[in-house]
Amino acid sequence: MTHHARRRAVVLLSGGLDSTTTLAIAIASGYEAHALTVRYGQRHAGEIEAARRVAADLRAVEHAEVSVDLGRFGGSALTADLPVPKDREPAAMSDIPVTYVPARNTVLLSLALAWAETLQATDLFIGVNAVDYSGYPDCRPGFLAAFERLAGLGTKAGVEGATFRVHAPLLHLSKADIIRRGIELGVDYALTTSCYDPDAEGRACGRCDACLLRRRGFAEAGVPDPTAYNPGVSTGS
Amino acid sequence: MTHHARRRAVVLLSGGLDSTTTLAIAIASGYEAHALTVRYGQRHAGEIEAARRVAADLRAVEHAEVSVDLGRFGGSALTADLPVPKDREPAAMSDIPVTYVPARNTVLLSLALAWAETLQATDLFIGVNAVDYSGYPDCRPGFLAAFERLAGLGTKAGVEGATFRVHAPLLHLSKADIIRRGIELGVDYALTTSCYDPDAEGRACGRCDACLLRRRGFAEAGVPDPTAYNPGVSTGS
Repeated sequence: MTHHARRRAVVLLSGGLDSTTTLAIAIASGYEAHALTVRYGQRHAGEIEAARRVAADLRAVEHAEVSVDLGRFGGSALTADLPVPKDREPAAMSDIPVTYVPARNTVLLSLALAWAETLQATDLFIGVNAVDYSGYPDCRPGFLAAFERLAGLGTKAGVEGATFRVHAPLLHLSKADIIRRGIELGVDYALTTSCYDPDAEGRACGRCDACLLRRRGFAEAGVPDPTAYNPGVSTGS
Repeated sequence: MTHHARRRAVVLLSGGLDSTTTLAIAIASGYEAHALTVRYGQRHAGEIEAARRVAADLRAVEHAEVSVDLGRFGGSALTADLPVPKDREPAAMSDIPVTYVPARNTVLLSLALAWAETLQATDLFIGVNAVDYSGYPDCRPGFLAAFERLAGLGTKAGVEGATFRVHAPLLHLSKADIIRRGIELGVDYALTTSCYDPDAEGRACGRCDACLLRRRGFAEAGVPDPTAYNPGVSTGS
């Protein structure tokens, strides 16, 4: 049996449910996955630890962590000291959320592109989702296509004829669909974290937008929710 | 006399000759300039110090420094331990240089965009130049236009109707033209640094591509070159 080099891909990995499923999909699709975690001034370090656990568990060939202090610019509850909204109805989440980080996916994809170019890779994976995060402009198909075009124009590889592709395999999936797909691929969601506002022990608040979407997803998928919640939280059904 | 709020702009400032002239042009054009220096794993800290001197001297209203470790990805003489080419002919410089940093301007512009969005600014300035740096794909007009389009699709402001503009006022100027324009605007080029390979005292090598272009620019502009060179260097004419 001969070994063929697998195609390399850079996979953005936050340590959350969506990016973890995306990493599993990239690997299942035959890519050699180089996982990239960007520390952009998040309020808690639990995401970084989750990303490390996930990269090891799913066997990414490499996991890089790069820091960029977007918090210097302010403007978001995820990087500044604004209150995280709790117990919002799904309809309210379709507005642009207060947790919006300015130009976040532009920054994340540009860093993924920089690494891809040094790896001679032209495939980028990002776990954006147009269903749950319709309020984020940089989670839309048109944005992703515009980035592919930019990548072709702004890199040595692109000028030499390479075509970059931004894979967003979750784009049109519901949270329940994402969870079902991940379970099929053997993802252990207990390793992941989604909460915008965990307690000191790293347990999820159960009430921010990310927790509510995640909880509803497990319920709709009919899969037990392995998330560690703060004991004060009613996890409902 | 009433005071009208000036339009804000984010100006990328490396501390080199080109970005310094760009900052002077942005201010002379009536913008309230927010200067952004990105530390991307450069090999020497002299650029950061030069950027601070320049931002203060030209009176940027604010100067932010953001670090992102592109050196983690390797791939360039500016961030890795490859030798910097010396004494190259201009024709050889038109190839993609070894000092090319992967996706650099994509990363720089994405960070400028993130700050612009929190400042409610839609004007970005970057000192790219298609004459001297024709070898860099991300210094071309098509790349800049693609970034403007991406910015409109990937930001809250863009979705709400704002149009982003990437100003590249040096794009079609020769190095001599850039220097003449800066001198008109009162730029003190002794504050700036361009060398890819300065000595321990921060003096320029005089022989890397950046030094050669800079020296030729001053000679062609008929302006005395204020650069501090390593004493071992023949500065020619």
